[in-house]
Amino acid sequence: MTEAYYYDVTNWPVGNPFEDVGQVINSMIEDIKKKQNNRDLDEGGKPGAVIYLPPADYHLKTQVLIDISFLKIMGSGHGFTSSSIRFNVPEEDVPNLHELWPGGSRILVDLETALDAPEIEGAAFVVKREGDPRISSVEFNNFCIDGLHFVDDGTGEPNVENTYVNGKTGIYVASAQDSFLISDMGLVYLEHGVTIYNADALTIHNNFIAECGNCLELRGWGQASKVTNNLMGAGFKGYSIYAEHFAQLLISSNNIFPRGASTIEFNSVTRSSIVGNILHAFYAGMVMLKANSSENLVSGNHFLHDHEPWKPMQMHDNGLDDLFGLLTIEGHNNSVIANHFSEILDREFIKPVGAKPVIIRLISGDHNYIATNNTVATEAHTESGDSAFAAQVDSLLTTEVSAPIDVTTVLVEANAVQNTILDSGTDEQVILDQKVNAFRATPSISIR
Amino acid sequence: MTEAYYYDVTNWPVGNPFEDVGQVINSMIEDIKKKQNNRDLDEGGKPGAVIYLPPADYHLKTQVLIDISFLKIMGSGHGFTSSSIRFNVPEEDVPNLHELWPGGSRILVDLETALDAPEIEGAAFVVKREGDPRISSVEFNNFCIDGLHFVDDGTGEPNVENTYVNGKTGIYVASAQDSFLISDMGLVYLEHGVTIYNADALTIHNNFIAECGNCLELRGWGQASKVTNNLMGAGFKGYSIYAEHFAQLLISSNNIFPRGASTIEFNSVTRSSIVGNILHAFYAGMVMLKANSSENLVSGNHFLHDHEPWKPMQMHDNGLDDLFGLLTIEGHNNSVIANHFSEILDREFIKPVGAKPVIIRLISGDHNYIATNNTVATEAHTESGDSAFAAQVDSLLTTEVSAPIDVTTVLVEANAVQNTILDSGTDEQVILDQKVNAFRATPSISIR
Amino acid sequence: MTEAYYYDVTNWPVGNPFEDVGQVINSMIEDIKKKQNNRDLDEGGKPGAVIYLPPADYHLKTQVLIDISFLKIMGSGHGFTSSSIRFNVPEEDVPNLHELWPGGSRILVDLETALDAPEIEGAAFVVKREGDPRISSVEFNNFCIDGLHFVDDGTGEPNVENTYVNGKTGIYVASAQDSFLISDMGLVYLEHGVTIYNADALTIHNNFIAECGNCLELRGWGQASKVTNNLMGAGFKGYSIYAEHFAQLLISSNNIFPRGASTIEFNSVTRSSIVGNILHAFYAGMVMLKANSSENLVSGNHFLHDHEPWKPMQMHDNGLDDLFGLLTIEGHNNSVIANHFSEILDREFIKPVGAKPVIIRLISGDHNYIATNNTVATEAHTESGDSAFAAQVDSLLTTEVSAPIDVTTVLVEANAVQNTILDSGTDEQVILDQKVNAFRATPSISIR
Repeated sequence: MTEAYYYDVTNWPVGNPFEDVGQVINSMIEDIKKKQNNRDLDEGGKPGAVIYLPPADYHLKTQVLIDISFLKIMGSGHGFTSSSIRFNVPEEDVPNLHELWPGGSRILVDLETALDAPEIEGAAFVVKREGDPRISSVEFNNFCIDGLHFVDDGTGEPNVENTYVNGKTGIYVASAQDSFLISDMGLVYLEHGVTIYNADALTIHNNFIAECGNCLELRGWGQASKVTNNLMGAGFKGYSIYAEHFAQLLISSNNIFPRGASTIEFNSVTRSSIVGNILHAFYAGMVMLKANSSENLVSGNHFLHDHEPWKPMQMHDNGLDDLFGLLTIEGHNNSVIANHFSEILDREFIKPVGAKPVIIRLISGDHNYIATNNTVATEAHTESGDSAFAAQVDSLLTTEVSAPIDVTTVLVEANAVQNTILDSGTDEQVILDQKVNAFRATPSISIR
Repeated sequence: MTEAYYYDVTNWPVGNPFEDVGQVINSMIEDIKKKQNNRDLDEGGKPGAVIYLPPADYHLKTQVLIDISFLKIMGSGHGFTSSSIRFNVPEEDVPNLHELWPGGSRILVDLETALDAPEIEGAAFVVKREGDPRISSVEFNNFCIDGLHFVDDGTGEPNVENTYVNGKTGIYVASAQDSFLISDMGLVYLEHGVTIYNADALTIHNNFIAECGNCLELRGWGQASKVTNNLMGAGFKGYSIYAEHFAQLLISSNNIFPRGASTIEFNSVTRSSIVGNILHAFYAGMVMLKANSSENLVSGNHFLHDHEPWKPMQMHDNGLDDLFGLLTIEGHNNSVIANHFSEILDREFIKPVGAKPVIIRLISGDHNYIATNNTVATEAHTESGDSAFAAQVDSLLTTEVSAPIDVTTVLVEANAVQNTILDSGTDEQVILDQKVNAFRATPSISIR
Repeated sequence: MTEAYYYDVTNWPVGNPFEDVGQVINSMIEDIKKKQNNRDLDEGGKPGAVIYLPPADYHLKTQVLIDISFLKIMGSGHGFTSSSIRFNVPEEDVPNLHELWPGGSRILVDLETALDAPEIEGAAFVVKREGDPRISSVEFNNFCIDGLHFVDDGTGEPNVENTYVNGKTGIYVASAQDSFLISDMGLVYLEHGVTIYNADALTIHNNFIAECGNCLELRGWGQASKVTNNLMGAGFKGYSIYAEHFAQLLISSNNIFPRGASTIEFNSVTRSSIVGNILHAFYAGMVMLKANSSENLVSGNHFLHDHEPWKPMQMHDNGLDDLFGLLTIEGHNNSVIANHFSEILDREFIKPVGAKPVIIRLISGDHNYIATNNTVATEAHTESGDSAFAAQVDSLLTTEVSAPIDVTTVLVEANAVQNTILDSGTDEQVILDQKVNAFRATPSISIR
């Protein structure tokens, strides 16, 4: 008999979704397979199913394993709220809080895993299937995956909720896959938000992935995918977006908050684009094109680097000083065109003391093309505070003009040759060997 | 007892959703709170709820007040149709119309408010909560909010349906909030579409907000938000997008129609981006960076300014003449790179008569960087008509080449110094004091 | 009596949705009209309806005809999987495949139409209504339309499943319409995916339209629309995106795969934007601005042209040689700024043998502005294979540096005059008549 495949976790005979939604979903997947196998398959297929999570708190004690194509898991609410702020509220103020936790259609990841276990063991949702074809069109939509707590990582962080370590992952795709769609989700307080191996035609769209150790990691290899319109921001140890051995990856229209150790990191990524994003970071090393990343386009992005204003996090950084560069390139044939960089640092915070911060740094590689990028570099006068938000608001409401600071807008190192640098800094701001690189300075008034 | 939170307005014991959906939704919110308070909160939270509006006409006579986090209100249809066209159809043709009103999951805003009452009183949906944490993750998705009629505003407009005044607002967020998501909505015939104070990590995505006095107003202050992929167009008195005291605001991939008094207006907005949009306007003053708006990036946008072709609206404009500029800047350190400007005006419509229209105007501020912007300026030969659409189609189907008009592509006023203007106009097209600004003209043939 | 309009195809008294979902949907539309006509319409309208397709296989033997506004047809799963790979798997391996067909909420298009019949006859969904107002706000969301098979087209293709011909169209909008929304869909193995005449304020967002003869065709005329965030890729005979007589069309943040005969083709399109896309093609003629297409902006795109690596498709191409250009312009006043071009071809594949491939070609037209575009041209060393994917992965995992090839980055033909070419190639790479065009070469090291 042919029938439709609609499942609601709150209306299923096996298990209790509020106590262990993992058991419920796994039971549903078994049911889907059973029904598929009973069907006449004359041009009919195995259409998968939708599993619906109405808004509620669902504890997950059993890992979900997805090994069928065309499964959509959807909720009605991404449910993000800042757990980071909540865990740094003074104890005496907690009783006055309206609510303590994220919400919406919320998965509470209650897996018990050792911190040194393989990452896959701590994942709420695992997708994995060997053989052909690659698993296709699994969709995650509009629910919340909450890792609940970070834990003591032995580094001496006085508030263990600030470690960004708990061995938990939201979604872990272990095998090659095609045409996946992760959209409108909220992920919070996970050591890894979304980890995906060997992606093809993947869409990561309009998600809210923040206060995770790492937000999005595209590992193995991949092609022809897009990461668009997301709000993201990793912890100080991790990546907001990481990709390796990828081609035709489009990263556009994202708004990426601090405080990831890097904002976007490419490891041997080629023929990909970072366009039209807002990128904000508290540390140098915002966008790194590493390990021969080549033929990429970085265009129309707004880079802002300023100083961490929030006291609980000021003890942390990523260990890089301001000579490292905001955008670094190790590779060839990349195009960096029409970007804006704001380097907003009070002199006292510049590392090493007295240094001229570097904006774009070509570490190695040839035939990179850097044109019409504008850099603004001034002091900030931002006050630190108990609230990062309040500090930002304060600075928004001031109109005082800050003093400029000297920077190197483009530094082309000795290993990088045959590059072209146009209109991206004055003669004083660009450091390169003109015998082996082409250069045209941004005109300055004094030159005329 | 733990349970899920799914509500359907057509299946609720209190009130009649077709007569007053506001009463129904407020009753549901009371129920949600009651159930939340009865729960054991051991790591469980207050997950909010979803309220579903299946397609239908829902009168709203009682304002909805949302003071809980994680509430999603969703329909199945944004339901936009042009009320403006319908209200300018000759009376005798009305009986032949297939339908008269917007549709989908449609809220008919029937609030009775005085035009001089505070804006909040005329809002269909109000979100407001004091205390901590800020209210989070309220979502509005895929329904229609219809203000029904505009009213006589005393200005003598012969058709009161063309005034863009009725004291009604679709969504009014009165207090600081986090991670809100407004997507796939249709808003029409409201004096204010969406008004939001003090936004953090807000998403306004894929909405259709048109024929409203104002479409989107981001007031107070805000940070780290995105306004993407929307179709918008305000009335002749209002803003399509307005933001004040905002940082890290990403406005990308929107297609903004006429006829807003301004298309995008920034008031003390910093470190934000306007990238990859199509902006079309009938008046000068399309994008204004005002009141020390600084360090913003305007890149990859298509600006079109042409003459109002629709007779019913030709009596209106925003009062600015063609010397005002299409993009104006009062602020410092902004980057304007890689934009296209089309100024398409028959000579007879240029104001003041005989003037050379201005495209980019730097009113005040320093260290703005203007590079590789292209301006096209020609006559139009557009016919006015009873249908703006027909006029557009006529012009699409013609291939006649229009005569060029002379314009000032960049005007740097005396108060603006130390700016850099590159490849954005010839020597004849750019007006600036080269003693205090850096300039490189777009090469012209005759120079060679 | 007022009521809501929610329909589920699996719960309807007329017809069997699994055998002929077309009959079921048409019956629902009749019911919607009947209910609308029975209603009191005092400021109430005809709100349309939602028709839900839970995941399942739905054969469609009767064409759906939509002639009401505000109808939303939605599923829970776009269901794309590669039928092209599946139909090129050796027969003996087929029994080992996990699944054979696309899935999700899947329409199997079983219409019987002659290949030479008018296109509309082979369409699964037809939208058509004459009179006023134009039909508005029909939405298609998150289901799959599967054309099932391609057929013998008489051209001698040994595998008829590779012809991209079957006379089937997914969605065919025959009459002028307003504010349509097609999102989150999957379309596969259709000769035409989506064909729309006379569009206004159309949204095509986040769809997966691939392995179709043509993906998206915007015919007639149109205005103020957006095509954003899609994954697309047509067959070797067709268009991935085609538009004619259109204004204010925004094509942004799409990731377009090979192997369309063209990737984006504009026919008399004006004042439109192609921004922030990844475009990948196996043939020259990727983006064509034809027939006086003017005042368009092409910015921030990544163009990649390389050689077809997949053996089953290597017998096909679009007939254009490498002198044709990757981006061609016949029109005036277009802006091409800040794009990256990768031309990756082993010398043996360049046509004609020994030719210098052309990247940007201005065929005719004046006042086009071409600035800060970067071209990379190297050999590839890609191995052909039984799997295009494997070939790509191989090339991703290699880091060997390829030898450069000589190209003409910009060719301005004799019919094209008064154009401006800046920083888009060295003196050796740009061919133009400097007496009638303005030119500034990208600085090269040797010049200094």
